[in-house]
Amino acid sequence: MEVGVIAASGYAGGEAVRLLSYHPNVDLTYITSRKLISKYFHSIYPNFRKISNLKFEEYNVEKAKEKCDIVFLAVPHGVSQDMVPGLLEAGLKVIDLSADFRLKDKTIYQHYYKKEHSHPELLDNAVYGLPELHREEIKNANLIAVAGCHASSAIYGLYPLVNENLIEVSNIIVDSKTGSSGSGAGFNESTHHPIRANSIRPYKMTGHRHTAEIEQELTCILQKNKKLNQQVKVGFSAHGVNLVRGILSTSHVFFNETQEIDEKILFKAYRMAYDKEPFIRLINQKIGTFRLPDPKLISGTNYSDVGFQIDKRMNRIVVLCTLDNLVKGTAGNAVQCMNIMCGFPERSGLEFPGFFPL
Amino acid sequence: MEVGVIAASGYAGGEAVRLLSYHPNVDLTYITSRKLISKYFHSIYPNFRKISNLKFEEYNVEKAKEKCDIVFLAVPHGVSQDMVPGLLEAGLKVIDLSADFRLKDKTIYQHYYKKEHSHPELLDNAVYGLPELHREEIKNANLIAVAGCHASSAIYGLYPLVNENLIEVSNIIVDSKTGSSGSGAGFNESTHHPIRANSIRPYKMTGHRHTAEIEQELTCILQKNKKLNQQVKVGFSAHGVNLVRGILSTSHVFFNETQEIDEKILFKAYRMAYDKEPFIRLINQKIGTFRLPDPKLISGTNYSDVGFQIDKRMNRIVVLCTLDNLVKGTAGNAVQCMNIMCGFPERSGLEFPGFFPL
Amino acid sequence: MEVGVIAASGYAGGEAVRLLSYHPNVDLTYITSRKLISKYFHSIYPNFRKISNLKFEEYNVEKAKEKCDIVFLAVPHGVSQDMVPGLLEAGLKVIDLSADFRLKDKTIYQHYYKKEHSHPELLDNAVYGLPELHREEIKNANLIAVAGCHASSAIYGLYPLVNENLIEVSNIIVDSKTGSSGSGAGFNESTHHPIRANSIRPYKMTGHRHTAEIEQELTCILQKNKKLNQQVKVGFSAHGVNLVRGILSTSHVFFNETQEIDEKILFKAYRMAYDKEPFIRLINQKIGTFRLPDPKLISGTNYSDVGFQIDKRMNRIVVLCTLDNLVKGTAGNAVQCMNIMCGFPERSGLEFPGFFPL
Amino acid sequence: MEVGVIAASGYAGGEAVRLLSYHPNVDLTYITSRKLISKYFHSIYPNFRKISNLKFEEYNVEKAKEKCDIVFLAVPHGVSQDMVPGLLEAGLKVIDLSADFRLKDKTIYQHYYKKEHSHPELLDNAVYGLPELHREEIKNANLIAVAGCHASSAIYGLYPLVNENLIEVSNIIVDSKTGSSGSGAGFNESTHHPIRANSIRPYKMTGHRHTAEIEQELTCILQKNKKLNQQVKVGFSAHGVNLVRGILSTSHVFFNETQEIDEKILFKAYRMAYDKEPFIRLINQKIGTFRLPDPKLISGTNYSDVGFQIDKRMNRIVVLCTLDNLVKGTAGNAVQCMNIMCGFPERSGLEFPGFFPL
Repeated sequence: MEVGVIAASGYAGGEAVRLLSYHPNVDLTYITSRKLISKYFHSIYPNFRKISNLKFEEYNVEKAKEKCDIVFLAVPHGVSQDMVPGLLEAGLKVIDLSADFRLKDKTIYQHYYKKEHSHPELLDNAVYGLPELHREEIKNANLIAVAGCHASSAIYGLYPLVNENLIEVSNIIVDSKTGSSGSGAGFNESTHHPIRANSIRPYKMTGHRHTAEIEQELTCILQKNKKLNQQVKVGFSAHGVNLVRGILSTSHVFFNETQEIDEKILFKAYRMAYDKEPFIRLINQKIGTFRLPDPKLISGTNYSDVGFQIDKRMNRIVVLCTLDNLVKGTAGNAVQCMNIMCGFPERSGLEFPGFFPL
Repeated sequence: MEVGVIAASGYAGGEAVRLLSYHPNVDLTYITSRKLISKYFHSIYPNFRKISNLKFEEYNVEKAKEKCDIVFLAVPHGVSQDMVPGLLEAGLKVIDLSADFRLKDKTIYQHYYKKEHSHPELLDNAVYGLPELHREEIKNANLIAVAGCHASSAIYGLYPLVNENLIEVSNIIVDSKTGSSGSGAGFNESTHHPIRANSIRPYKMTGHRHTAEIEQELTCILQKNKKLNQQVKVGFSAHGVNLVRGILSTSHVFFNETQEIDEKILFKAYRMAYDKEPFIRLINQKIGTFRLPDPKLISGTNYSDVGFQIDKRMNRIVVLCTLDNLVKGTAGNAVQCMNIMCGFPERSGLEFPGFFPL
Repeated sequence: MEVGVIAASGYAGGEAVRLLSYHPNVDLTYITSRKLISKYFHSIYPNFRKISNLKFEEYNVEKAKEKCDIVFLAVPHGVSQDMVPGLLEAGLKVIDLSADFRLKDKTIYQHYYKKEHSHPELLDNAVYGLPELHREEIKNANLIAVAGCHASSAIYGLYPLVNENLIEVSNIIVDSKTGSSGSGAGFNESTHHPIRANSIRPYKMTGHRHTAEIEQELTCILQKNKKLNQQVKVGFSAHGVNLVRGILSTSHVFFNETQEIDEKILFKAYRMAYDKEPFIRLINQKIGTFRLPDPKLISGTNYSDVGFQIDKRMNRIVVLCTLDNLVKGTAGNAVQCMNIMCGFPERSGLEFPGFFPL
Repeated sequence: MEVGVIAASGYAGGEAVRLLSYHPNVDLTYITSRKLISKYFHSIYPNFRKISNLKFEEYNVEKAKEKCDIVFLAVPHGVSQDMVPGLLEAGLKVIDLSADFRLKDKTIYQHYYKKEHSHPELLDNAVYGLPELHREEIKNANLIAVAGCHASSAIYGLYPLVNENLIEVSNIIVDSKTGSSGSGAGFNESTHHPIRANSIRPYKMTGHRHTAEIEQELTCILQKNKKLNQQVKVGFSAHGVNLVRGILSTSHVFFNETQEIDEKILFKAYRMAYDKEPFIRLINQKIGTFRLPDPKLISGTNYSDVGFQIDKRMNRIVVLCTLDNLVKGTAGNAVQCMNIMCGFPERSGLEFPGFFPL
């Protein structure tokens, strides 16, 4: 299987290159960048010096068709939607890391991205790239819209609770913390090290675009479960903390009043959802420094750790989920989707267990 | 005015020494530590080398009485309650940095601190040491129970909203992030640098002791405003982030349905509460890297920055409040209380504006 | 005394504003910035919100003359030399934070700064702004060229050894480590947080401009001591480490063979040099975490901590010196020079002892 | 091939477990810890949760013999020397991560480790575990003494210069910077996060034990090259910086006066030494943020990046070498030695390219 990465110079594309370079079932034959044509990949990913001789090439559909069976598209939001139709027509399978095909409803897309979608007819065709929720659809997809990093983190935490109808869905609070790599390779004054270091920066308290993905996916679960009259509403807020990699999402939700508050019910819900999942781990010990999810442990890996605690006084459940925004939050999930599409072992190329300490 | 700091070796006591050493209206005449008797303060606060020749002395009430008019008590929770009665009897004013006299209700104290209070008769006598809420009572107090760091941060953010009856008070969520100094000078495996660095650690998701203070103080405001049938309930969760100093509390609250959601109402509430306060700043710009509160800016200072954003979709207000856990969250507020008690200018000894960048 | 800060928007100028705002003997009457005219200082130094209403003004000599007795010049290297003559003619005293007037020899200036000096006739007039070495000249100076941050750190460590003729001066090695604020407020890809964080970056191994200052000043000491045939040669190398503020310079020097290696001689040399200095501390304990200088302790202060260890096997002395690059390394030394020029107490406005922990 | 790790709970042993768990040519059949018998490895290396079911076992020679062909010994310095003889007698090959068998001269061992060696007769038998210098001997060794982390970093930088007789060997200065994981899993006050974070700590300026290894190995090269009358002397100084993983060693050396200073000669020396080495990279670009070695790029990998710059004024060469103290500085080199001993491909199990950004 031959694969390519379009726009491999950014952090998402670069991470895809890293993972695909060591994937046992594929050949990475084509990486592109508009600005770095004929430069080595290691010129901007210097960890690859003496390891890889990959060079950036110019992008065009013909070349992609000639060299690849599947392409990972890591262009900016808004650009992808104009490239995907040509790639699909050329018979390629497309795994899009951008947000362009994540939302099913073009009106919601327009609301959050302040732009009319240029190819809304493809939205239904695209499969939301969260393997745990859409494994069957991914198998036969030709267009994957890989889930957003914050959205993945929120959904992994909340999915079992929504699926088992355990919580109120109209007042979900998600308080998310992320490292600085989440804002990408582009720099500006706000990412200047003396400005960004040692801060806890509340950068998007309301209106974050991933809100739409979270609501879409969780509402979709309700619909599958015939809870047709309910609509998930999520209050999502994102903070930058003093890290480079990693997201921790803390969701504060309220138990359905019809339910008895019971830890066992929650454990059962999470285990049913994730026991067989290769990359989701339930972390919920009574004691220990790492008794709950911490991004320190999953940095660089495709694992997402999920945990919870019950606050009986408030009828509240605190749900914790952590993942590496560039791996399980982007490029790793993309590769996992590819594994499913291609019938590879799902853990293929994604087994790295992470470091400790780091 | 002569002042002393009892148990000056810990982070709270050490910070009190730092502030009092430069306070223009007082003489710091007495600092104690059980383990460091006759050692220099700078032996454990090496930033004071060549600056101060203060030495730790043994603690006893007589010495305190002889040397001080006011004592700052920085002993651990549970120890303070047995020392305060003697100090008060000796005619000293006591500013207690511990949690022992913060809660008015001995039952709630026992619930959260797993211990029967040894002097519940003094609880009514103690004034909760949050200058902005209790300025008048502080003037005449002889026992101040300085507010907890997380509690201060939560209360400063929420007080104007509760006071103006703008929000639902039964489902307040406070998601707090703190630096590592919050856990004190005692070390263990979980504070080992390779373990603690680069983490986002969800360390107390439910049952945090400061919950009780927040609820007490906010409920007290309701009662003052004759909302006698309401009881504030707070779901408080605390995370450690990759910092040494600083707390950022993000509160997620819901507008009262009887109110129209309106930014102006909020601005008015915050301005009424804080415009004349010397150390609370309303930070709420539309643009800019520091448009909302960030602990980076208040590290080492007695300022607390407060801001908010409205999420109309959810009827949610996101409230942000930041302070330095060791200053405005502990020793700085203690000094501010002393200034009020003694009739000093309230900003005395607390004017440090902080660094930028840091 | 009325003072101004020209180009107060950069990190050096901003730090001068911070220090002068709290200086008990001066009024800060004039701050300028080309790009921020009529904007508040706190618009870019947000730690000054609700504290200062200072606004940036346009710069011109007349205004400076009208409003100030002394100006702090924080313009970039190369710009200062064209502004200083006018300011001096206007009768102002000038404290220049740039490198333009530090070097006495215009040829060496040209070599290191790749530019012909536009006013070499003023070089002799300027006093090198290192209070400990030039206190007497500073008293009567009208132009101070404040020492460079790395240079100050190296010189403070080495001065006593050179002054007492204890070391070989032709093969001094200075290995310096600095935080990210040293590169200034200008940002680029290399200062992007995901790129700069967690690195130890060897950014200038040879040819660093501060080499010239260090050699000039140390050679000058030899000359004062009639060691006329010797020329100090310094191999200076600078690394960026994972901090915002602070420099630690480690100097590796060799004992003069004519000397017996003896700790007492060294202690005597350092004590003679620094015992009466208000801001230089000799830190040389046998045990303890902070037995040697560490920038952690002097962040934000005007202190510089100096220490040493002897390596008898190699005939080597390891000299350690730390300071805050923006304070004792720039703006703090500038204020100390002003204090000396104006006959103020030398510690005036500079007493801040720093935080611990931080 | 079956392998075991003795004392797998510390950072060096834990890293060996991580690498061996994913090694394609071996089975990790035995890990031990005195304190954690029958506990899961993932109970202290929580990144291995849901990945590995390895349990710590009790250590004894019989069990080791039964279960392993090779053991990695990660016990503390001083303990290893009493365990090795039994393991060798049992027919096992031993890869010792401790310092016990690194030094050939028992007198020097005693000088640096303050202890008489209990089995000096084995010192000659042991091969110093630096693959690039001792590949041939490693092939047939039954006892490998894996090189120290700082020592490896210094030697990799200096070896080509000593081998080609390019520098003065009696006044080599090595200024080394390391992350906090270098001090191991044991915690104390000095590793408490609020104390250790944000520091540059000069922790061992003289007398560092790795000095002896560096001198032994570099002198040994001189002897091989028939420079019999020369003895390498190294002034080594170690600093802790604000990182968890990684070492950067900056060596300051002086050109032999008989040589013309010439970059080409240096490039040739480094290329001859390292062009065919799988894990040593020469990093020496004229421009770019990462033009010289930076530990940011090699964190978690078995790569060591080496670079240099010439300072003609001083006749000085600044040599830079970086590696991950726990991988190429310990467990990775150990695995590479095993690969050589066993005839596995040398890169086996060590191909991880590292992350960027991190």
